[in-house]
Amino acid sequence: MTSVPKPTVLMEPMNVPPRLLMGPGPSNMRSEVQEATSKSLLGHLHPEFVKIMDDVRLGIQYLFQTNNKLTFAVSGTGHAGMECALVNLLERGEKILVVQNGIWGARATSLAKRMGVDTFVLEIENGKAASLGEFEKAVKEYKPDVVFICHGESSTGVMHPLDGYGNICHQNNALFLVDTVASIGGAPFYSDNLNVDCVYSATQKVLNAPPGLAPISFSDRAVDKIKNRKTPVASFYFDALELGNYWGCFGEVRRYHHTGMISMVYALREALAKLVEEGIDESVNRHKVNAQLFYKELKAIGLEPFVTDEVLRLPCLTTVKIPEKVTGAAVVGCMMNEGIEIAGGLGATFGKVWRIGTFGMNSNEVNIRKTVVQLEKCINRNKV
Amino acid sequence: MTSVPKPTVLMEPMNVPPRLLMGPGPSNMRSEVQEATSKSLLGHLHPEFVKIMDDVRLGIQYLFQTNNKLTFAVSGTGHAGMECALVNLLERGEKILVVQNGIWGARATSLAKRMGVDTFVLEIENGKAASLGEFEKAVKEYKPDVVFICHGESSTGVMHPLDGYGNICHQNNALFLVDTVASIGGAPFYSDNLNVDCVYSATQKVLNAPPGLAPISFSDRAVDKIKNRKTPVASFYFDALELGNYWGCFGEVRRYHHTGMISMVYALREALAKLVEEGIDESVNRHKVNAQLFYKELKAIGLEPFVTDEVLRLPCLTTVKIPEKVTGAAVVGCMMNEGIEIAGGLGATFGKVWRIGTFGMNSNEVNIRKTVVQLEKCINRNKV
Repeated sequence: MTSVPKPTVLMEPMNVPPRLLMGPGPSNMRSEVQEATSKSLLGHLHPEFVKIMDDVRLGIQYLFQTNNKLTFAVSGTGHAGMECALVNLLERGEKILVVQNGIWGARATSLAKRMGVDTFVLEIENGKAASLGEFEKAVKEYKPDVVFICHGESSTGVMHPLDGYGNICHQNNALFLVDTVASIGGAPFYSDNLNVDCVYSATQKVLNAPPGLAPISFSDRAVDKIKNRKTPVASFYFDALELGNYWGCFGEVRRYHHTGMISMVYALREALAKLVEEGIDESVNRHKVNAQLFYKELKAIGLEPFVTDEVLRLPCLTTVKIPEKVTGAAVVGCMMNEGIEIAGGLGATFGKVWRIGTFGMNSNEVNIRKTVVQLEKCINRNKV
Repeated sequence: MTSVPKPTVLMEPMNVPPRLLMGPGPSNMRSEVQEATSKSLLGHLHPEFVKIMDDVRLGIQYLFQTNNKLTFAVSGTGHAGMECALVNLLERGEKILVVQNGIWGARATSLAKRMGVDTFVLEIENGKAASLGEFEKAVKEYKPDVVFICHGESSTGVMHPLDGYGNICHQNNALFLVDTVASIGGAPFYSDNLNVDCVYSATQKVLNAPPGLAPISFSDRAVDKIKNRKTPVASFYFDALELGNYWGCFGEVRRYHHTGMISMVYALREALAKLVEEGIDESVNRHKVNAQLFYKELKAIGLEPFVTDEVLRLPCLTTVKIPEKVTGAAVVGCMMNEGIEIAGGLGATFGKVWRIGTFGMNSNEVNIRKTVVQLEKCINRNKV
C-alpha cells in the first residue's frame, strides 16, 4: 500500500506564460514544429517512423553540409552530443587538445578528464580565437588524438574561425571535433569542406525546435578510429556504431537499441524541413544581415558588443557589454517582466555582459527592434 | 558555399497515421499529455519552468513511493536511466550481480562490462524469477556492491517479486537497484518499503507520455556511496549529484548543468498529474483487473500466456504463446494493417510469443476486447 501521499500541487493547472526567447536558447518554436510535437505516437521501429528518421538523417547531412554516412541525432540535449563525440572518439590514456576560449572548451576538458583521457588546453582570452599559428604550434607540441574547437562560444559570443584548422589536424594525425550547438544554421559551417571529423549540435537554437536531440556526424576517418578501438565504448546509450545501425546509417537491418524520442524526432524533421525550404546559405546570410542591424541599433542606444573584432562575432548570439552604473541582473529581470528573455553572462563573462540570441525565426527586424527598445527602457530604469 | 544539395524529400508532408499501440511501448499519449507537449517553450531556468520541475519531482516521488531527496528525471529514454544508475553507483573494478531472466538483465550485464565493472550473473530461466533462496545464495557468494533486478521483464512478460530482496542486499552490504521501465504504475512497487536504493523507469509505458525522460531515484544509502567514490563519475550528462543540484533536490542554488527537455518535462508533469488523479493503488489495481479479463478473453480463443505462474505475470504487458501452425510475424503484420500494434518476442522469446501491452489508459475493456477480436481474425488468416 502507498505510504507517500498524493502531491496535490499536481492537481493545479500548469502555468506556461508566452515569452519572446531572445536569450542563449532555447529559442521560440516555429508553429510547424509545435504542431509536429503533439502528433500521435508511432512505434519507434514502425515503417512510417523509420521513414521519418531517414528524412532526418538527410536533413542533418544538409545542415552540416556533409556526405558522412554516420550521421544521426543523439537522444539527448546538446551536451549529450559532446559526450557522444568524446566517448566514441577517445579511449582512456589517449590525448585531447582543447581550444578553450569560454565555458564549452572548459566543459570538454572536464568531461575528457572524467573519462581518463589526457587533456591539453590551448587557453585563449575570452572574446578572442586561436590563430592558425598558435593552433598549429599546440597541435605539433601535444600530438593529440583529437582536437576540440567550439564554433559558437555562447558564453563569450565568439564565432571561432575554422578554415585551415582541419588540415592542420589531419597533417598531424589528429581528428578534428567541432561543437556547433550555438552556431549551426546561423553561421557558415561546411563540415566536409572544413575537414571536420566529428560535429554535433542541438535543436533548440537556430532550428527553433524544443531541446531534446543532438544532431551529430562522424567522418569516415572518425569511423575508422572507432572501429579500431582497443576497448569498447564505455557507454551503450552513446555508442555511435550501435546508434548508426539503429538510424540505418549503414543500410544494415536495424537492431533495437533504445526507444527513440518519437515526438522530438517529429519536431526535428519539421525544423529541418523549414531550414531546407529557406536554404542554409540564405539562413546564414539572414542571420548576418540582421546581426549588423542589431549592432547598429545597439550603438544607437550607446551599447557595444563584447567581441571587438566583428569578424569573430557569432551572428546569432551577441554578447553586449553592460554599461557602467547599470545593474545587469536588474535589466534581465525588467526585460523578463516585459515578456522578453535575455540572459546574463556565463563563466568568465558573468556580470560583464548580456547575452542576446537572434536564433532562427527570431532573427528578424521586428524582434530586434522590439528588444532594443525595451532594453533601453530597462537600462534607464536600472541605473545606479 | 553549400556542396550538399537540398534533400527535397523534406518538402513532402510528414506521414503519421493514427494507431492503437498495444505493443511493449511506446503506448498512446493521453490527450492532456499531447496538449502539454506542444505548449510554448520557456527558458530551462525560468521560474515557471523550475516550478514545473519541482512538481515533477514530487510526482516521481509519489510514482516510486519514496521520500528519497535525490529524485528527478534523466534527459533520455529508459536506457539512459539504466546508464545513469550504473555509472553513479559503480566504479571500475567494483562488482555487480545481475538477476538475468530476459534481455534487460543481459543489457545491464553488458553495460557494466563496458564500464570496467566485474559482473556476476544469476541466470534464471525465461518466464521465471529468482527465488529468495537462490538470490540470497548468489549475493552471499559473489559479495556484489550492487544487485540488479528488472521488475517488469518486457521480453518475457515476467513481474519479478521484490519483497525481501532488498533486505538481503542490505544485510550483505550491497545496494539494491531495480528497473521498473515496463512496470511502474501497472504493477505494485513501493520503493521505500522494499528497501530499494535506486529505481528508474520511463515515460512511454503506463504513464502514456512520449519517450524522452527516465524518472530515477536514489536512496540516502546510494547517495552516501556516490559521495564517497574514489573516482569521478565518468559521465557528466548522467552525473546524479550534478543533476540533483539542477533539479533542486538538495535545496541548493541551481547551477546550469544541461538544457532540460522542456517539452518532455511538460508532458511528464501532465502524465504524473493524471496518475495522481487516479491514485497509484487504483492504477495498479485497474491493470490487474483488466489483465485478468485479458487472460480470460485469450483463453476463449484458445491462446495462453507464456508465463505459466499467474503470480509472476506482469499485468501491463502480457506475453502470449504463438500457437503451432501460425506464423507469428504475419499476425503482427495483419494487426498493424488493421491499425493495432502488437509485437513479436525479443531475445530468447523471439518467434515464440506475441507481446501485448495494456499500458495506462490502454488498460481498458474496450481496447482489450478489440485487440482480442482482431487477433482471432488475424490468426485465422495466417494458419499454415
